[in-house]
Amino acid sequence: MNLDSAPLRLGTLVERYGGTLSGDPETLIRGVSTLESAGPEQLAFLANPRYRGALANSHAACVLLAPSEAATGRAAQLALWIADEPYVCFARVAQFFAARQSERAAPGVDATAAIGPGAQIDATAHVGALSVIGAGAQIGPGAVVGAGCVVGARTRIGEDSLLHPRVTIYPDCAIGARAVIHSGVVIGADGFGFARDGFEWVKIPQTGRVLIGDDVEIGANTTIDRGALEDTVIGDGVKMDNQIQIGHNVRIGPHTAIAGCVGVAGSATIGARCMIGGAAMILGHLELADDVSISVGTVISHSILKPGLYTGFYPAQENSLWEKNAVMVRHLDRLRDRVRALEKQIGKGSA
Amino acid sequence: MNLDSAPLRLGTLVERYGGTLSGDPETLIRGVSTLESAGPEQLAFLANPRYRGALANSHAACVLLAPSEAATGRAAQLALWIADEPYVCFARVAQFFAARQSERAAPGVDATAAIGPGAQIDATAHVGALSVIGAGAQIGPGAVVGAGCVVGARTRIGEDSLLHPRVTIYPDCAIGARAVIHSGVVIGADGFGFARDGFEWVKIPQTGRVLIGDDVEIGANTTIDRGALEDTVIGDGVKMDNQIQIGHNVRIGPHTAIAGCVGVAGSATIGARCMIGGAAMILGHLELADDVSISVGTVISHSILKPGLYTGFYPAQENSLWEKNAVMVRHLDRLRDRVRALEKQIGKGSA
Amino acid sequence: MNLDSAPLRLGTLVERYGGTLSGDPETLIRGVSTLESAGPEQLAFLANPRYRGALANSHAACVLLAPSEAATGRAAQLALWIADEPYVCFARVAQFFAARQSERAAPGVDATAAIGPGAQIDATAHVGALSVIGAGAQIGPGAVVGAGCVVGARTRIGEDSLLHPRVTIYPDCAIGARAVIHSGVVIGADGFGFARDGFEWVKIPQTGRVLIGDDVEIGANTTIDRGALEDTVIGDGVKMDNQIQIGHNVRIGPHTAIAGCVGVAGSATIGARCMIGGAAMILGHLELADDVSISVGTVISHSILKPGLYTGFYPAQENSLWEKNAVMVRHLDRLRDRVRALEKQIGKGSA
Repeated sequence: MNLDSAPLRLGTLVERYGGTLSGDPETLIRGVSTLESAGPEQLAFLANPRYRGALANSHAACVLLAPSEAATGRAAQLALWIADEPYVCFARVAQFFAARQSERAAPGVDATAAIGPGAQIDATAHVGALSVIGAGAQIGPGAVVGAGCVVGARTRIGEDSLLHPRVTIYPDCAIGARAVIHSGVVIGADGFGFARDGFEWVKIPQTGRVLIGDDVEIGANTTIDRGALEDTVIGDGVKMDNQIQIGHNVRIGPHTAIAGCVGVAGSATIGARCMIGGAAMILGHLELADDVSISVGTVISHSILKPGLYTGFYPAQENSLWEKNAVMVRHLDRLRDRVRALEKQIGKGSA
Repeated sequence: MNLDSAPLRLGTLVERYGGTLSGDPETLIRGVSTLESAGPEQLAFLANPRYRGALANSHAACVLLAPSEAATGRAAQLALWIADEPYVCFARVAQFFAARQSERAAPGVDATAAIGPGAQIDATAHVGALSVIGAGAQIGPGAVVGAGCVVGARTRIGEDSLLHPRVTIYPDCAIGARAVIHSGVVIGADGFGFARDGFEWVKIPQTGRVLIGDDVEIGANTTIDRGALEDTVIGDGVKMDNQIQIGHNVRIGPHTAIAGCVGVAGSATIGARCMIGGAAMILGHLELADDVSISVGTVISHSILKPGLYTGFYPAQENSLWEKNAVMVRHLDRLRDRVRALEKQIGKGSA
Repeated sequence: MNLDSAPLRLGTLVERYGGTLSGDPETLIRGVSTLESAGPEQLAFLANPRYRGALANSHAACVLLAPSEAATGRAAQLALWIADEPYVCFARVAQFFAARQSERAAPGVDATAAIGPGAQIDATAHVGALSVIGAGAQIGPGAVVGAGCVVGARTRIGEDSLLHPRVTIYPDCAIGARAVIHSGVVIGADGFGFARDGFEWVKIPQTGRVLIGDDVEIGANTTIDRGALEDTVIGDGVKMDNQIQIGHNVRIGPHTAIAGCVGVAGSATIGARCMIGGAAMILGHLELADDVSISVGTVISHSILKPGLYTGFYPAQENSLWEKNAVMVRHLDRLRDRVRALEKQIGKGSA
């Protein structure tokens, strides 16, 4: 992906994105890279102190880092771009170069796409090869629908949103502006709702929608179910990794980030700015307050109303030790009873 | 999705689905909703006592509830439809209205679909845009194959089954009648079977099939592998949520329900009427009896031959507390040894 | 899938794949099956002693087994093929018969496929119905791209690799020779990389690639993200089951096998010949040495530098017992304090 592009003055970049430069502003920059791989026309960054050791051998044109790392950077005799939030600054520079190299699809509807009656596709939008746009669907200005996508009837895709190839959205859903939706995502499938009648399960028709705000990213093969009667709602700026499952009627507040393989069961409400670690599992009908963080692999079975970090996974160890200890975990009540018996005996003894 | 439809007399509905009415049978009903959102032409329901508080402010035309909730309903001055199983009854009424509003695809094969030689597509079936039907496949009466599906050679889809867009079924599988299969599902991919030869893995060809009974629902992006030599078999009435993984040669008994993100490893046998919670993991070559329930996030590593509810996930807590306790979980043997030492000492002391 | 095929002499098979025969070399074999299902023209095998009981009633033409099982096999009066690695030997025989019955697609590009400018498709490769090959992509000799696949611009598919229907590969990735990639797989989607700027997340463009070695198998709906700046690299001979998530910049060594539902977070490095159990979760920026095995459902939160088997899942038990013990797990510190108090008291008492 390192396509060639015209270089930019380092000084121009620093002026544009903020911070101070300790080095030659005339240095030409063509792109970004890691400390280890960057060449003399690339900008690198140091955001994690554990990679500090890589400064000494870096051939980067310049290194973006925090004021606290400046002394180390100087010792390595590198040009430095010092910024309070070096990782954010790096992200913006990287976006700048990536945008120049990107291959945003040209406006127009591919001849092999199947367009339903009444679909409204903006003249500046792109609809890719072999995709299907349902009746009455709306594709907004600048939006890109990749190859092989299926957009259901009456579903709306907001301005400048990008659907990578093979995304499926069921009818009557709405995606906001500037979404990035990766391949294999399924939005609006039926929630898992059945009433038990004796041994049989009677389906509850899932007639709600999925409503997704602006600036949302959704990773590959993630699934977001439509609501049963009400809607499933994903707030602005939510970022989701791959293979996440969101049940019906879930509500997720703005700017919450969810790592891969997480499951959120039906009717859970997750606050704003939460961070959910990989493979965590949030049970249904409960609430996470704003600013709650959940660790990897943790099952949340009760509401959490206080911000903070919550954890619950079994710590790994060598298998033979685990086997010994896991047996005791299953019988902690016995150990407790032995302690209790000792306490009684001692209590007697010392009485 | 709340398309308009002709209203129905409340009295007619109660006669059709059973129960007793305390209210005006001439009230006209156009659909169903929640207690909170229902308007004067909509039926609501109360199935979970925790939502009892919503009765007082409901504007529903009528509320379906159990005899035990009738007094509360009357106090709220609402018309009541009293039924022994209000949730089941609600499901059936909701199905009735949903069926009237549904957009079941018209019979016929879309001109953009690719149909293999010898495929038999019933005249009343629908094959959607840009889908692929393999050689010798059979699509039964009333079945719907959504846009972008791939149905493998010789695979059979039963009567009135519905494949949502972008379902993939490999060759030689069989789906029963009235299935609902959601987008992204993959049925019949190879099971994970390899023999280890030194450092290399030698593939065991997966030559079995997937056989799925009647009235099965399969959620988005779920995968069901074909058998190695025998078949993978899913019983009648099984309901599966999204992102479930079913390994080769697994057998699942009738009317079992499986929540999202569950994994079932190869050659496991799951009984009838089981309920498996989200993200549970069932190891291979073991057996769950009929009527076994497994909690969310639980790893089942031994057969369970007795009905009941089984659980095994690490309880979540504030991270700092978890860190303290998790260390001790890994060294429970030391705590046990200390108790043992105390017991010996006391035993001596008191002897 | 049990298509008919011309039979082969048992003696010929034994000569080809090694071992010794105790039985009639003229027996004709048409295929393979299980001990229970094999008929008089089929070869069966015994690899797991727990199935030894099935020998007595088997109607197989011959049974492949290890020298240690030969006496039991003779007692059952069966023809025996004795080999040191009977399961590997069986795998090779099964591959032989499967290859004879396989329906490898004929060379050529389906008329309904959409081929981008500059794509190079070898004359011996097959591109299936309604698939999309991006600009400048390369499809190697003998490779098969199934129906409905999307291969991104400039991506390379190696010799004899097989993409089942509906695989998606993003631009600029590379797949080696003889890969088997199952339906729903997504390779090269963006890794989950964002810098936090106040409450907002700023996307880090993911400009690395995914590089996959030779002889790799990837199960249905698995996702492998492209690198952020460097590449995500999967070694030769790696075998992955379904619904696995591999984050950006991950490196996996040769011949490692990963079971279903596993997650590997960004920048983790996994050695050669590792075995990762189902639903295990490997955190980011850590290292697993060569020959490390991880049990099902285990969260790995620290690097493991020593070969061996590591485990960490909460053992399941009847729910009422779990409830009792889980409470104590969350308060192990209190139990430890009670033991400590007893030790002090006894220490004093015995002093």
